Amino acid sequence: MRALAFDGSRAALVERPEPAVGPDAARVRVALAGICRTDLELCRGYLGFRGVLGHEFVGTVVDGPREWRGERVVGEITFACGACPSCAAGLGRHCPKRRVMGIAGADGAFAECVALPVENLHRVPEGVPDERAVFSEPLAAAFELLEQVDVPPGTRCLVLGDGKLGLLVAQVLAAAGAEVTALGRHSAKLAILARRGIATAAADAFRGPPAPLVVEASGSHAGFRRAVELTAPRGTLVLKSTLASSEPLDLAPLVIHEIRVVGSRCGPFPPALRALEQGTVEVDALVCERVPLARAAEALELAAAPGALKVLIDCA
Amino acid sequence: MRALAFDGSRAALVERPEPAVGPDAARVRVALAGICRTDLELCRGYLGFRGVLGHEFVGTVVDGPREWRGERVVGEITFACGACPSCAAGLGRHCPKRRVMGIAGADGAFAECVALPVENLHRVPEGVPDERAVFSEPLAAAFELLEQVDVPPGTRCLVLGDGKLGLLVAQVLAAAGAEVTALGRHSAKLAILARRGIATAAADAFRGPPAPLVVEASGSHAGFRRAVELTAPRGTLVLKSTLASSEPLDLAPLVIHEIRVVGSRCGPFPPALRALEQGTVEVDALVCERVPLARAAEALELAAAPGALKVLIDCA
Repeated sequence: MRALAFDGSRAALVERPEPAVGPDAARVRVALAGICRTDLELCRGYLGFRGVLGHEFVGTVVDGPREWRGERVVGEITFACGACPSCAAGLGRHCPKRRVMGIAGADGAFAECVALPVENLHRVPEGVPDERAVFSEPLAAAFELLEQVDVPPGTRCLVLGDGKLGLLVAQVLAAAGAEVTALGRHSAKLAILARRGIATAAADAFRGPPAPLVVEASGSHAGFRRAVELTAPRGTLVLKSTLASSEPLDLAPLVIHEIRVVGSRCGPFPPALRALEQGTVEVDALVCERVPLARAAEALELAAAPGALKVLIDCA
Repeated sequence: MRALAFDGSRAALVERPEPAVGPDAARVRVALAGICRTDLELCRGYLGFRGVLGHEFVGTVVDGPREWRGERVVGEITFACGACPSCAAGLGRHCPKRRVMGIAGADGAFAECVALPVENLHRVPEGVPDERAVFSEPLAAAFELLEQVDVPPGTRCLVLGDGKLGLLVAQVLAAAGAEVTALGRHSAKLAILARRGIATAAADAFRGPPAPLVVEASGSHAGFRRAVELTAPRGTLVLKSTLASSEPLDLAPLVIHEIRVVGSRCGPFPPALRALEQGTVEVDALVCERVPLARAAEALELAAAPGALKVLIDCA
């Protein structure tokens, strides 16, 4: 099969055997896969990953337990050991022995096929087309925030960053009843939210008061510093994007204003699939390119271009 | 009166008029005052403070409303406006117009007298001598942690830093039923905790597993990095000390392990006074020097010496 693999210096289309699957695993023929900022970071050396990239996908089970064959599925990306204290506590996503599909120790979904444990699979409701189902993983990451932080209806929230994740987070918070203002630098991206009735503002021009809940989804150190400024005393600042680099940061404001910073990563798939089925979150407008697997290396470049939103890879 | 004032370049004993007091304020004749690390930071330019230093004190009201005169008191250090939304929400300690005694916009207690609003005063119980009452403010800061974070009995906690605040925090957590291990670099300081049955370990040698609750009280960037490493996935890291400088910090682990960082500053006086009255927290062993006000500038030097614990200034 063809796959887009990173060898430590570059990502290129390679020929690989189809992945073998054990008794509790499934081989999924990938229909569509999505490129995430993390994929671009991995290609710059983040986490030292080597292998087939890709952790956002939708596809059909072609091998594995009978009850799964032929099912259209999406999949959670963390492969937990199932036996350690973290797993026993229901925190498999934090299993210290975990492998993560396309990120750490496991091949990913920028390929004709991908293998994963069946316990990671979720059936895709009939009414959700592939083009939307492929957003399950990043949308689940947006829902993670609601698992970690209490957001009573009417909570005033600021979301920093109008990239893919920022646009999803703003919609999830708004759907949960929060009073959201999304701050970004791209009027076309912010317009996606404005069309859904979500308040938006140019990040540089925003002079509103600090808010009790701020989400940093810009992925930049400047964004983090601004997020700290915009968080009200005793407020919560959710970090939704990994900053791969180190930069000087002044943590004194966190203490002076008694701010709570909450790191937030992968999330629960079921609410994401429900939101896609019910249409409470708009994802169609987030797609900027759709590229066949044969041109996957080029797809990475398109995703890295300034202002790019979601680039999909057609793996069928 | 004599007072230790910082003029922007040095702290020196100066002669000042006794502070005038308005209708809702009191003039307190200071008996004892304590030197905090923040005082040393202020003398290095932190927050740009100018004026009389000192925010830990015990004394007797000599002027003010009749019901307060002659009372032995300690005092909360934040002078809130009382009229803004923060104050209305009970968050006077975060009032944006606040002045802070000896730290921002208000003269402090390294003086024969200090003035403060009567609403900031707390009577000292008879059984608490001045030498213990003077610890009310830092002990209140330790109790603040319990206001911000749920600490069910038996919670495994690591406290990093065996300075004054670390020793108070470790005792407050242990008294609340937490399973505390204090990590430090000074065996004599850790012995204060060990004598009270609190587990201790040399910070460099500690190889224990990460804990669900970690308190950073070392005030160093290295301490912060170590604290992040020692916080279990989905755990809480409380920042109890302001780091006045900026240093490169990698925040990715906060996201990957979904760590919650909680900045924590000043706290509630009543539980601190109760703990001092009931003897649940040992403070006597934390005093390393007691110096008369006439030698207050020297007292600052003693407090800045490596390994120093609490230096008290005798203002009577």
